Amino acid sequence: MSSNPAPIKVGAVLFTGFELLDVFGPLELFGMLGERVAITMLAENRGSIRSHQGPACVADEALAGAHGLDVLLIPGGQGTRREVSNQPFLDELRRQSDKARFVATVCTGSGLLAKTGALDGMRATSNKFSFKWAVSQGPRVKWVAAARWVEDGRFFTSSGVSAGMDMALGLIARMFDKETSIKAAEHAEYEWHQDRDWDPFAKLNGLA
Amino acid sequence: MSSNPAPIKVGAVLFTGFELLDVFGPLELFGMLGERVAITMLAENRGSIRSHQGPACVADEALAGAHGLDVLLIPGGQGTRREVSNQPFLDELRRQSDKARFVATVCTGSGLLAKTGALDGMRATSNKFSFKWAVSQGPRVKWVAAARWVEDGRFFTSSGVSAGMDMALGLIARMFDKETSIKAAEHAEYEWHQDRDWDPFAKLNGLA
Repeated sequence: MSSNPAPIKVGAVLFTGFELLDVFGPLELFGMLGERVAITMLAENRGSIRSHQGPACVADEALAGAHGLDVLLIPGGQGTRREVSNQPFLDELRRQSDKARFVATVCTGSGLLAKTGALDGMRATSNKFSFKWAVSQGPRVKWVAAARWVEDGRFFTSSGVSAGMDMALGLIARMFDKETSIKAAEHAEYEWHQDRDWDPFAKLNGLA
Repeated sequence: MSSNPAPIKVGAVLFTGFELLDVFGPLELFGMLGERVAITMLAENRGSIRSHQGPACVADEALAGAHGLDVLLIPGGQGTRREVSNQPFLDELRRQSDKARFVATVCTGSGLLAKTGALDGMRATSNKFSFKWAVSQGPRVKWVAAARWVEDGRFFTSSGVSAGMDMALGLIARMFDKETSIKAAEHAEYEWHQDRDWDPFAKLNGLA
């Protein structure tokens, strides 16, 4: 018997036009857990994938090949507008979402997940500058307009871009404990917004 | 004559073991400027470069081939401990630093830049959990222990990891104006720490 449990497997989904911080904010914080976490980059096909901002990152594995994920991380970005019409990708996203222990979305990633039907009947939030678009992708989702992030069972959905970092710390607290999240935030010199209801950006967009 | 000025050229430096958020936090915020900014990923050699956390990203261009940079962005991460002994890389980093309009470092990236001598006589800060290491790389730098970020002429140096986002907004304010930074932060749903002297992490590490 090993004294160390198996690492938490985090799989982050890339697609052309993904939003950089949606992916790398949460992964930075998961990365603070060191050997307790193993990160894999996933996409419809392996290879390099260009973000909305320009930089390209490498998908190590095809989404269809992923298994045993503790966390499926789905970012947003302009590319979601195209991917909601990519049925094979949506089917695989749904299959992975059904299998993963936790599913976490950032920004318009919740719109993409909603389009698969996986969020039907669940409480969820999304980017506050594209909230109507997200809502239009999942009419049976219980959308929450004002929230930094929302937890409903094994689904963690966050507000826009940087909100993914606060949500990731919430998810780390769920999987480990709050002290682990506080340490991860400190080492990233990040001020964690622990209050899930903190959302000045909903007000800014007339959503609260 | 075009009605639009040429985009601001931002070059981000990658090396094996770079810290994800050091790179992608600032690039997310620069990316919010849309067509006013063009981002290039640089490394000693072109190709895919693995971060400290695992994910690999693509360097589009060799560092030696970069020219006309408005911002040279230098991240930190465990890889800095190796790169301070890589003299050809340090020489090229110094050459690019001398040419760039602004040089911005995140976390232990200031230790790497200090090793080139470019920060001699300048005020600079660094990660608060690895501060002594950074200081040891540049004995002639005027190190500032407590600061979210430090501006000295064309050099912007930030504290650890997430501090790079606050610094990037400070640099955007310098290059454009404060309103542009506020809008970029809002669209990233990010709460900008505008106070350069805000640094609870210095206190946490007995540096203030």
